[in-house]
Amino acid sequence: MPLIRCACHAGFSYWTGAAAGPPDALRSGSEPPASGGPIDPSIFEEVASASRILAVQGVLDAFGHVSMRHPTAPDRFLMSRSLAPALVTAGDIMEFNLDGEACDPQGRGVFLERFIHGAIYRARADVASVVHSHSPSVIPFGLVETPMRAMYHNAAFLAEGVPVFDIAEEFGATDMLVGSWQKGAALARSLGDKSVVLMRGHGSVAVGPSLEAAVFRAIMTETNAKLQSQATILSQGGPIAALSPEEGRLADAVNLRVIQRPWELWKRSISGRS
Amino acid sequence: MPLIRCACHAGFSYWTGAAAGPPDALRSGSEPPASGGPIDPSIFEEVASASRILAVQGVLDAFGHVSMRHPTAPDRFLMSRSLAPALVTAGDIMEFNLDGEACDPQGRGVFLERFIHGAIYRARADVASVVHSHSPSVIPFGLVETPMRAMYHNAAFLAEGVPVFDIAEEFGATDMLVGSWQKGAALARSLGDKSVVLMRGHGSVAVGPSLEAAVFRAIMTETNAKLQSQATILSQGGPIAALSPEEGRLADAVNLRVIQRPWELWKRSISGRS
Amino acid sequence: MPLIRCACHAGFSYWTGAAAGPPDALRSGSEPPASGGPIDPSIFEEVASASRILAVQGVLDAFGHVSMRHPTAPDRFLMSRSLAPALVTAGDIMEFNLDGEACDPQGRGVFLERFIHGAIYRARADVASVVHSHSPSVIPFGLVETPMRAMYHNAAFLAEGVPVFDIAEEFGATDMLVGSWQKGAALARSLGDKSVVLMRGHGSVAVGPSLEAAVFRAIMTETNAKLQSQATILSQGGPIAALSPEEGRLADAVNLRVIQRPWELWKRSISGRS
Amino acid sequence: MPLIRCACHAGFSYWTGAAAGPPDALRSGSEPPASGGPIDPSIFEEVASASRILAVQGVLDAFGHVSMRHPTAPDRFLMSRSLAPALVTAGDIMEFNLDGEACDPQGRGVFLERFIHGAIYRARADVASVVHSHSPSVIPFGLVETPMRAMYHNAAFLAEGVPVFDIAEEFGATDMLVGSWQKGAALARSLGDKSVVLMRGHGSVAVGPSLEAAVFRAIMTETNAKLQSQATILSQGGPIAALSPEEGRLADAVNLRVIQRPWELWKRSISGRS
Repeated sequence: MPLIRCACHAGFSYWTGAAAGPPDALRSGSEPPASGGPIDPSIFEEVASASRILAVQGVLDAFGHVSMRHPTAPDRFLMSRSLAPALVTAGDIMEFNLDGEACDPQGRGVFLERFIHGAIYRARADVASVVHSHSPSVIPFGLVETPMRAMYHNAAFLAEGVPVFDIAEEFGATDMLVGSWQKGAALARSLGDKSVVLMRGHGSVAVGPSLEAAVFRAIMTETNAKLQSQATILSQGGPIAALSPEEGRLADAVNLRVIQRPWELWKRSISGRS
Repeated sequence: MPLIRCACHAGFSYWTGAAAGPPDALRSGSEPPASGGPIDPSIFEEVASASRILAVQGVLDAFGHVSMRHPTAPDRFLMSRSLAPALVTAGDIMEFNLDGEACDPQGRGVFLERFIHGAIYRARADVASVVHSHSPSVIPFGLVETPMRAMYHNAAFLAEGVPVFDIAEEFGATDMLVGSWQKGAALARSLGDKSVVLMRGHGSVAVGPSLEAAVFRAIMTETNAKLQSQATILSQGGPIAALSPEEGRLADAVNLRVIQRPWELWKRSISGRS
Repeated sequence: MPLIRCACHAGFSYWTGAAAGPPDALRSGSEPPASGGPIDPSIFEEVASASRILAVQGVLDAFGHVSMRHPTAPDRFLMSRSLAPALVTAGDIMEFNLDGEACDPQGRGVFLERFIHGAIYRARADVASVVHSHSPSVIPFGLVETPMRAMYHNAAFLAEGVPVFDIAEEFGATDMLVGSWQKGAALARSLGDKSVVLMRGHGSVAVGPSLEAAVFRAIMTETNAKLQSQATILSQGGPIAALSPEEGRLADAVNLRVIQRPWELWKRSISGRS
Repeated sequence: MPLIRCACHAGFSYWTGAAAGPPDALRSGSEPPASGGPIDPSIFEEVASASRILAVQGVLDAFGHVSMRHPTAPDRFLMSRSLAPALVTAGDIMEFNLDGEACDPQGRGVFLERFIHGAIYRARADVASVVHSHSPSVIPFGLVETPMRAMYHNAAFLAEGVPVFDIAEEFGATDMLVGSWQKGAALARSLGDKSVVLMRGHGSVAVGPSLEAAVFRAIMTETNAKLQSQATILSQGGPIAALSPEEGRLADAVNLRVIQRPWELWKRSISGRS
């Protein structure tokens, strides 16, 4: 997959609205975008750890990816080159602009669906990290009319509602992949101000105010999906007393404060693995 | 999370009624409560083992905790500092009074939900150990009208009935956590004289006459939940021939006599892990 | 649990009818029964391997047991002392008569439910091995009106029908355990001439013409239970095209001829474990 | 199981029609068929890796097999001798003609169901690899009226439809195995031009234009089956928005281009295993 090379984006302003038209950068150019500035090497380690954690936790398999917004340049983000998530190390992390263009490609392959990440960082100034996965228990919720709801406090971020993005609504029959900025922008519009969006026949995206939060939410979305399937069996058509939106807001605030505990545990689970 | 420091509770009498008002200890004071007395070091090892066993068995993940009543001071209990259960070792075990105040805090973080434990030890003189978990198959039973029942002899302790604690009934919209003695007391009232109480949108609590019994019950509650989900699928609306209360009483007595066999097996499963 | 000591049974004749009254041996005596004769040490190794295989395969946990009829004395059988199945080695295998009395107890604890084995060996001359388990997916089938059926050729032995033993029918409220020769005989009557009998609120028993066959059947019964649960979900009340009894007979004959292939694979899975 | 020895097939022409009558080769002869020509040793390694990958992924257990068409002789294929898939190494790979006759038997046991492979290679010139498995989540779909559909883009190859082969329709009560060229030909007719065929009461077959593609499809069929069971629970009788045939075609084309990524990951999962 050849890299799209384009005009330098050093001066590209950070735009938080959903994309309404093609960014200029896609229309011309021959140079990769400039870097958003130097980054502490430990950041690359953390992004790579997130990737391997998500693989060990069964959220990512050979596909899917996690990204993090550049800590000082909001119009840049960090993501692995195209590689199975379980194999990602710090040296695989690349920098992209919000159009999904690599700042220093070095001939490396990049993920076709990097537009998911760029489009969401553009639309959501509050988002610092994005996880795109095909985690298995979540996929069925993108295919049915039953909405995903928050089954317990650790999945409290779902209580605000979980939209479904059906790529066919705007784009007709496709290969189901978010392989263009237009599709990325449409996905970001479906996500709106929520924490998770389901993708019909494909997977889902979880976002958060930190790398740890996005990883936590991706993992808990998978767990919650399993719980809701069980609750559906047990309820036999009766009510399921999911968290209310207010309960969700209150519980999510606590989760974000204690997130370091699971994060440290998960990091131990990947030590010794590359 | 700063520790609440309070008046010494050396003379605090052991009270088995459910909490009706705020214990005096919460109203004033500056000294931590006194210890209930010296404890054989092997006890700390056993409590830590219980924590790691529950992690290996999938009952606890990054959250949840197990405690044990002080062997000679019934108004004290032992529980890990705030730490992922898989990582707990003997040195992490702290002593608390029944208000959840640490006897020798040493600046260590404590679990927000230690009130679950204190309140139950206060209300139930027969309880020597408490496990609070978010074990996944159990959570859906706290959300639906279908009561949990005993599917087989190893889960016989469920045949007496399994109440559901809905924190919203008394406290309205909350963060779902049992983070105060009032909430702990309400939970203990829901538990009543039973072995397990489900917590809506949160998890569950299992209690027992020994550390081994509480661990066994927490594990078997998770197993039973899986079985009942399967039985619900298979019954297709027809009857499920669960254990009767009398069968439950008879079978539970046998379980408590043979509990050392699974306990030794589970201890082997954690050897070499910290 | 003290061993019941009884009169020597060296001359006890092999009786294939279901037990109608208490064997004489249970009424008096002070000497353990005589051994049925020397056994090749590799036989003990095979019985112990079967125990550990069933643990690794998830059919046995801390409870349950596998036995084998004495190769030359049909009124004796071999079974581990009371021990978690995952820990059994050749030195733990003991010899029993069909009343469940140990020939050389040496003060070792024995399984309470050894009567399951003795009663079935007495009632079924064709049976060379018995597995009693609480394998999780099977238990729900003992609680519902939906009969277990053969979902695929490897579980062909189920196509002949799978009876359910409800201990309450004959014995009222009990501890659910088969802890006497009377209960063992009732269970054997429920089994009849089939390969598997389900035990309400407890577990199941699988039998076979060889140790390998009984182990294979216990494992495949667990697998089949999972498949039938899935088929029940998918059929949505419609038909499930299970194997017919004739298909079952034909396919089971093939399975018994190729059984060494899974057996060797399973033995590899336990090498290095004790 | 003795090998059928037959006339040399060196000149046997490659025939893509479904078998309408017994190939001449089955009627007489005494010599094994000639080899299709020398093969790069790395090919044998790849076929053996495929076998072990499918075992590690839970698609194959003690039974089942994967084959690959001879790279230069379309009327020959490569498959392991009769052996548990987890144990297959390059030296176990044998060459067969499309009648399932070994070119150089050396007294080795061969799989009874090698006719599955030969019949499909004969009927489908586009197929380069065949996997036959009893992967557990797939089996129930062969027993019910609910058709298997594509739940997500990685299982896009299912969107064209998934036929069910009921061996009883043509052959009455059997041992359920495809143990003759006639049964293999009937199975190939059921498969038609699709990628997967379900076998009632038995398992399934996945085919692909390359070894990697057939392995990928066998694994994704198992995953898809789990997803569809969950979707069926969640839909509660309502619609399931599976991939349309056109979406399936478009997404499958992408999958085939990125297949090396999971393949390399899966190969890492078997390194150090034999």
